[in-house]
Amino acid sequence: MAALLASKELLTFPNPHPNNSYTIQFSTVEFTTLCPMTGQPDFATVSVEYSPNEKCLESKSIKQFLWSFRDEGNFHEDVTNIILNAMVSACEPKWMVVKGHFNIRGGIDFVITATHGDAPKT
Amino acid sequence: MAALLASKELLTFPNPHPNNSYTIQFSTVEFTTLCPMTGQPDFATVSVEYSPNEKCLESKSIKQFLWSFRDEGNFHEDVTNIILNAMVSACEPKWMVVKGHFNIRGGIDFVITATHGDAPKT
Amino acid sequence: MAALLASKELLTFPNPHPNNSYTIQFSTVEFTTLCPMTGQPDFATVSVEYSPNEKCLESKSIKQFLWSFRDEGNFHEDVTNIILNAMVSACEPKWMVVKGHFNIRGGIDFVITATHGDAPKT
Amino acid sequence: MAALLASKELLTFPNPHPNNSYTIQFSTVEFTTLCPMTGQPDFATVSVEYSPNEKCLESKSIKQFLWSFRDEGNFHEDVTNIILNAMVSACEPKWMVVKGHFNIRGGIDFVITATHGDAPKT
Amino acid sequence: MAALLASKELLTFPNPHPNNSYTIQFSTVEFTTLCPMTGQPDFATVSVEYSPNEKCLESKSIKQFLWSFRDEGNFHEDVTNIILNAMVSACEPKWMVVKGHFNIRGGIDFVITATHGDAPKT
Amino acid sequence: MAALLASKELLTFPNPHPNNSYTIQFSTVEFTTLCPMTGQPDFATVSVEYSPNEKCLESKSIKQFLWSFRDEGNFHEDVTNIILNAMVSACEPKWMVVKGHFNIRGGIDFVITATHGDAPKT
Amino acid sequence: MAALLASKELLTFPNPHPNNSYTIQFSTVEFTTLCPMTGQPDFATVSVEYSPNEKCLESKSIKQFLWSFRDEGNFHEDVTNIILNAMVSACEPKWMVVKGHFNIRGGIDFVITATHGDAPKT
Amino acid sequence: MAALLASKELLTFPNPHPNNSYTIQFSTVEFTTLCPMTGQPDFATVSVEYSPNEKCLESKSIKQFLWSFRDEGNFHEDVTNIILNAMVSACEPKWMVVKGHFNIRGGIDFVITATHGDAPKT
Amino acid sequence: MAALLASKELLTFPNPHPNNSYTIQFSTVEFTTLCPMTGQPDFATVSVEYSPNEKCLESKSIKQFLWSFRDEGNFHEDVTNIILNAMVSACEPKWMVVKGHFNIRGGIDFVITATHGDAPKT
Amino acid sequence: MAALLASKELLTFPNPHPNNSYTIQFSTVEFTTLCPMTGQPDFATVSVEYSPNEKCLESKSIKQFLWSFRDEGNFHEDVTNIILNAMVSACEPKWMVVKGHFNIRGGIDFVITATHGDAPKT
Repeated sequence: MAALLASKELLTFPNPHPNNSYTIQFSTVEFTTLCPMTGQPDFATVSVEYSPNEKCLESKSIKQFLWSFRDEGNFHEDVTNIILNAMVSACEPKWMVVKGHFNIRGGIDFVITATHGDAPKT
Repeated sequence: MAALLASKELLTFPNPHPNNSYTIQFSTVEFTTLCPMTGQPDFATVSVEYSPNEKCLESKSIKQFLWSFRDEGNFHEDVTNIILNAMVSACEPKWMVVKGHFNIRGGIDFVITATHGDAPKT
Repeated sequence: MAALLASKELLTFPNPHPNNSYTIQFSTVEFTTLCPMTGQPDFATVSVEYSPNEKCLESKSIKQFLWSFRDEGNFHEDVTNIILNAMVSACEPKWMVVKGHFNIRGGIDFVITATHGDAPKT
Repeated sequence: MAALLASKELLTFPNPHPNNSYTIQFSTVEFTTLCPMTGQPDFATVSVEYSPNEKCLESKSIKQFLWSFRDEGNFHEDVTNIILNAMVSACEPKWMVVKGHFNIRGGIDFVITATHGDAPKT
Repeated sequence: MAALLASKELLTFPNPHPNNSYTIQFSTVEFTTLCPMTGQPDFATVSVEYSPNEKCLESKSIKQFLWSFRDEGNFHEDVTNIILNAMVSACEPKWMVVKGHFNIRGGIDFVITATHGDAPKT
Repeated sequence: MAALLASKELLTFPNPHPNNSYTIQFSTVEFTTLCPMTGQPDFATVSVEYSPNEKCLESKSIKQFLWSFRDEGNFHEDVTNIILNAMVSACEPKWMVVKGHFNIRGGIDFVITATHGDAPKT
Repeated sequence: MAALLASKELLTFPNPHPNNSYTIQFSTVEFTTLCPMTGQPDFATVSVEYSPNEKCLESKSIKQFLWSFRDEGNFHEDVTNIILNAMVSACEPKWMVVKGHFNIRGGIDFVITATHGDAPKT
Repeated sequence: MAALLASKELLTFPNPHPNNSYTIQFSTVEFTTLCPMTGQPDFATVSVEYSPNEKCLESKSIKQFLWSFRDEGNFHEDVTNIILNAMVSACEPKWMVVKGHFNIRGGIDFVITATHGDAPKT
Repeated sequence: MAALLASKELLTFPNPHPNNSYTIQFSTVEFTTLCPMTGQPDFATVSVEYSPNEKCLESKSIKQFLWSFRDEGNFHEDVTNIILNAMVSACEPKWMVVKGHFNIRGGIDFVITATHGDAPKT
Repeated sequence: MAALLASKELLTFPNPHPNNSYTIQFSTVEFTTLCPMTGQPDFATVSVEYSPNEKCLESKSIKQFLWSFRDEGNFHEDVTNIILNAMVSACEPKWMVVKGHFNIRGGIDFVITATHGDAPKT
């Protein structure tokens, strides 16, 4: 069987329209990690939006980066900020927001929304 | 049978990313209390959003705190503000909003929205 | 048969948390009145939101107040403002908005939105 | 002000296509009556479907017939069957079903479904 | 201005797969005619499903046929059966059902469902 | 404060239309009980449908009967059948089905559907 | 058959609450006109919102005004602005917005949003 | 640029559970072909359900098979049956149904539902 | 960190109401496994419904059983039938159906529905 | 068979209401292009909104312009900005925003939102 191709490395490509004003948004309902307290799998919808500066995040490496949390233990508040910090480091955007919407546990769901920089005017 | 583990105590843990700008939102459709006038059970969706300062609310104690209203008599306007005040005291956030959406009684539903501090810019 | 307990009187109770900043919202899909032109029943969803000052509207009297329009003739624009004015007089809020969403007649639906004071910052 | 033109009389017109096999369905979200116990207004969605025989129900008289329950006291189970019986008497259909879906009272909604004759094969 | 190309003529083409068992369904939210009583425009969603025999209905002529009711006066029950009868005559299907769902008038909507032949087993 | 008026007693009233063929359906999103294993509150939507014979279930006693499980420990499979058996004993219907849809625990929701007698033909 | 009572004349009535701050919104899914290029019927949802000054638009004349486009040829961008200009002339509002949402043609839908004056603060 | 890997060949693999009774359903919103009359692109949701006999359709070849219609001219009724016939030939199922739901053209959408064999009892 | 408590063992408890006719349904949106071809994670909604005989499936072991596929390679058709066979072996039900709805890959989603025994009459 | 009438040329017509303040919005769910890496077809919903200056985009040429990407290889970020730049060049609007919402690939969907000029106040 083919092995899971997870990776902590986020690749980028040069912004193809650096003179245009635009945002890039992506989301997946397929984020999963493990609860550090109970070992139980956690599931979340993760969405990211950013204003590119000189670099854009490459989509295949986004996929493999998000897979890399599958077998780790991560708290909700922590992992959302870890994703933000890693993506900001990789592409140095003008603005970025990462939202993690975690499925119900004990009757309660959680949404963590972490932001870097100032949102563009719309 | 195991007893209901309700508690008025709200625990906290240190904010793992105090240098990041982020909000934490949680909600449950499973809030219930009793009407002080009629003794009839009331049901609500309770949602909370806040900007953490140095402390975050611990999720298991949130659950047990919300259970602690199950056998008490509480008016809608009162209990929503009581939840806000207790959570603000526990974690001293930059900003917090608590919303209680109470199910229909006599053809009318109620939503109480109580706020502490100024909302972060988005 | 028990008689309809409608009443034009709106009762209040003292704001239990005058030092907190909060809003109260309530709505019903069960508002009905009569068309003054045709005698045909009209139906609306009525929703109210306000920032309490020293007094809150009592929920049973809200219900009986809204019932009091059942056998009267009222135009859409008029009755929505009449509800606003009566509720403002009764509880003297910082801010109040009343919205009446009237069901389709002749293929057209109407929404009247009447406001008193300035909305709180959110 | 124009008076409410309610009427217990259901008018009919001759089936314009007696050799065709068809059904007629109509529904309104605007049915209201009074609770015989409390005098409180009740609201329901009423829907009717039937296979016409020689007569069809005239739409204006359907409207005025449904208005005629507005100021009466009626239990859910009773009024749904009263509507069925009156409509069956008026148009003598091959088959008819009347459904009354009553709004939530005390946290519970009710749906009464009364049937006359055998449903057509579809 | 180009004139409205309405037509009462329904064209057909030979069933391209007469040995296959299949149904053809089409629908439009853009059906309009006039109320013969009041002259007021009526609007409906019209949907048709049939099992073709040797002929299929041609789509451009379906469109022009449905437009042909725009300036006529038609009762709901009548026009739905007229559409059925015309389409059955044109393509002689094994089975056909025509459904007209007419928009709310006086708080009541109507659905007329007319059928020719026996539905295929599914 | 008024006490919770729960009761295991289900009252009935005589079927007002014993010669008509009809069903009665009711549901609530406000059912709560306790998990016998963990003491954690469980929440469910409970819906009931039945064909009355000589007796109908009285709505106020339905409400108080469903409240009576609030402080008890009950497994999903068990409590749904207990509700069915009690309601069948009380009103001796031709047919009854009770469905309990329990909220997500550990990422899994449960629906228990218990039936007494044969469903009426529709 | 009764004739279509369309009219280009928009009637008004005096604002019944000139000292209140409120808006009036109405919409219909039943707007139809003809394409000037192809003669094909076009369909749109038209919605209007305005802040009345001294005059309000009378609802029956709104209906007949919107019917008056039924047999005319009109481009999307043009007809939406024509409706705005006529309604502004008739009632001289503080602010008005007219939105025409035209059904899909060639796989593309269009929404034209025309505004007069400055929106009220909310 | 990589070329489009479309193919008319449908591959299969041996049914891994030939003794189990089961169905396989798949669907895509990404089917596109060309109108043979106008050259305009058509779009459809295509869904397939079947009961496998000895062979199952391989998912990558399904994808490339559906891509193979992208640059061809195809009528709705024809292409849906062509897909059915090709898939039946490839995997010889006990039962198969292919449904093509084509996007609105001229205000009308079409759904073609073609069936091979008898549906399994459920 | 706590380890993932996955297990292939399905536990049961005695049917608490063997004389009642009822079904048990459960579902989760949190099923994940790996694609044997690419190593890419697959996600599915898995739902199960069965008529218990003498034994019911214990809910905690259901959860741990479904977790046990997280790190394995499994084809859609295969894993759905494997789940059915394991659950049938464990509780020997009168009837069981397992449905796996797998998320979109290459623009196509799959639903596998595997059945054991005959469905109860409803 | 008629050929696909794609074209890179965007036609315009003079703004019919240059003194009115309005926006034009259009969208299609039928945009398709090819992935430059894999040759796999990509699908997107493309929506455009703009404030016209002296020229409006002609709808037939919009349709043919969007078709012109069907057989080309285009990255998400690139093609959305290419559409914006071409439309801005053609009609020189006060403000324009183009949004491309691309279907899920590898469990992730993308939305690119490119803007020219400052949005009008609403």
